[in-house]
Amino acid sequence: MPLLVVGSVALDSIHTPFGETADALGGSAVFFSVAASLLAPVKVVGVIGDDYPTGELERLAPRGIDWSGVERAEGESFRWKGKYSYDLQSRETLETRLGVFASFRPKLPPDWRATKFVFLGNIDPELQLSVLEQIQSPRLVVCDTMNYWIQGKRPELMALLKKVDILLVNDSEARELSGNWNIHKAGRWILEHGPKRVVIKQGEYGALLVEPNRTFYAPAYPLEEVFDPTGAGDAFAGGFMGYLARADSTSGEQLRRAMVYGATMGSFAVQGFGIKGFEGVDYDAVQRRVAGFVDLTHVPAAEPLP
Amino acid sequence: MPLLVVGSVALDSIHTPFGETADALGGSAVFFSVAASLLAPVKVVGVIGDDYPTGELERLAPRGIDWSGVERAEGESFRWKGKYSYDLQSRETLETRLGVFASFRPKLPPDWRATKFVFLGNIDPELQLSVLEQIQSPRLVVCDTMNYWIQGKRPELMALLKKVDILLVNDSEARELSGNWNIHKAGRWILEHGPKRVVIKQGEYGALLVEPNRTFYAPAYPLEEVFDPTGAGDAFAGGFMGYLARADSTSGEQLRRAMVYGATMGSFAVQGFGIKGFEGVDYDAVQRRVAGFVDLTHVPAAEPLP
Repeated sequence: MPLLVVGSVALDSIHTPFGETADALGGSAVFFSVAASLLAPVKVVGVIGDDYPTGELERLAPRGIDWSGVERAEGESFRWKGKYSYDLQSRETLETRLGVFASFRPKLPPDWRATKFVFLGNIDPELQLSVLEQIQSPRLVVCDTMNYWIQGKRPELMALLKKVDILLVNDSEARELSGNWNIHKAGRWILEHGPKRVVIKQGEYGALLVEPNRTFYAPAYPLEEVFDPTGAGDAFAGGFMGYLARADSTSGEQLRRAMVYGATMGSFAVQGFGIKGFEGVDYDAVQRRVAGFVDLTHVPAAEPLP
Repeated sequence: MPLLVVGSVALDSIHTPFGETADALGGSAVFFSVAASLLAPVKVVGVIGDDYPTGELERLAPRGIDWSGVERAEGESFRWKGKYSYDLQSRETLETRLGVFASFRPKLPPDWRATKFVFLGNIDPELQLSVLEQIQSPRLVVCDTMNYWIQGKRPELMALLKKVDILLVNDSEARELSGNWNIHKAGRWILEHGPKRVVIKQGEYGALLVEPNRTFYAPAYPLEEVFDPTGAGDAFAGGFMGYLARADSTSGEQLRRAMVYGATMGSFAVQGFGIKGFEGVDYDAVQRRVAGFVDLTHVPAAEPLP
């Protein structure tokens, strides 16, 4: 099944202890699509300025990414500039220039409105709601958000939560949204406010899938080299949704496997600057890493004890 | 099989956001023993002052803890006083009074020298080495250490590492010991300096078992209430070693299950002040929580995709 993502298509300038890159392809919709397209066809809704290197987007099209829902507007593209600490544990935003993104009003091409799997990337909850209004009868709606919206657009965000199946956030966002430091309490609070499930990403430690009576934990892949954490969360979302779209399923069991595909895509994302971590990664490479993930937490059955 | 632990038998005064306790039973050997004794008989080597409430130790004896290797010396018992931050993420040591522990020279009762499973709790590496010299032919030696010894007794610690099977430390200790920020690189560095395996505890996130060509990850149990993290690492060690002693095995597969028992005991430890988290916990309760752990990371087999 194809899936639809709405989010940012940006140009990132990133400084890490291992080097730097300027005006590289980035944004939530780009990281999501590059990851998800390894598993299912992706339709992207977004906006770029007239300065965007569209050739680079087009080079990704053969992967199964349909950019025709990305509007080209007059003005500058969304740019983000950030610098990571020596240990990659924290980052500082040096500059955010919204450009054409400031007046973005997502419009779905008419024949995309029947898409069943929908990911609402981290944009203004009012816009996320407006996307949902354009979708006919989605089977699975997953949304992301961030502290900026939790603080500034709380009523809109709470209204959105009533309409999504799964909220996918990181631990600090779950804490801020719920007012609970304990991550499991935070997860339960979120379940009481709309979503049937919540995915809580914990960066280098992995991610939790919290369901009403059950929790699943997918650790992060044991990587000895991490180059650039930018986009790992969106790549996680892409793997998670891409797997479910491919499986055409939202069963609890498949959601657990989807978590592993999410973690797998997150682990590719951090291995290179921007989307470079996905260079040379094909479906077989994904399957091999998924197998590695399954082994990472495999608990052998109990042997009879003496 | 019985197992032997050498470590501190202390009196802890702990302040957490949820309350405080003074002169409570604590110390690495106590937390280790309370956890391990749920799985196998434990023999403790340590020292207490003439002020120690021995009645409280004796009350634990029926669990299968043999305190006869704990020497009673003239003077004050080891006392530790600490205060946790509001989120339990960090703690401040308010006071450490070594007392009789300052001149502790572990002496094994002669008939304990044939014990096969040995845990060297976090004490001076010279003393850990002296314990090993008193053991005849151990089957599994696991040791703990801390930043204080990594900084102050590095040569002795490196000599010790050549003689132990498994080093069990937390992430900051692994980083400081190896000089590598990346936890997987840190683990590999340690494997190159003696131990065949290393267990790296990551607090609320779980623990890693790093082997030369394979890694296992045991997440922490999803607890909505954490009262007091004191002793969780030693309880982890007790569950880990207790399981292996009970299974009389050091196979790679059993080590993975041992990690789950370690994480299980750590999760009981944090549910109450000091050793109170273990009140009412019996073998069946341990088994139920182990089953919960196994479910927590269980990845269903792949269904055929359309």
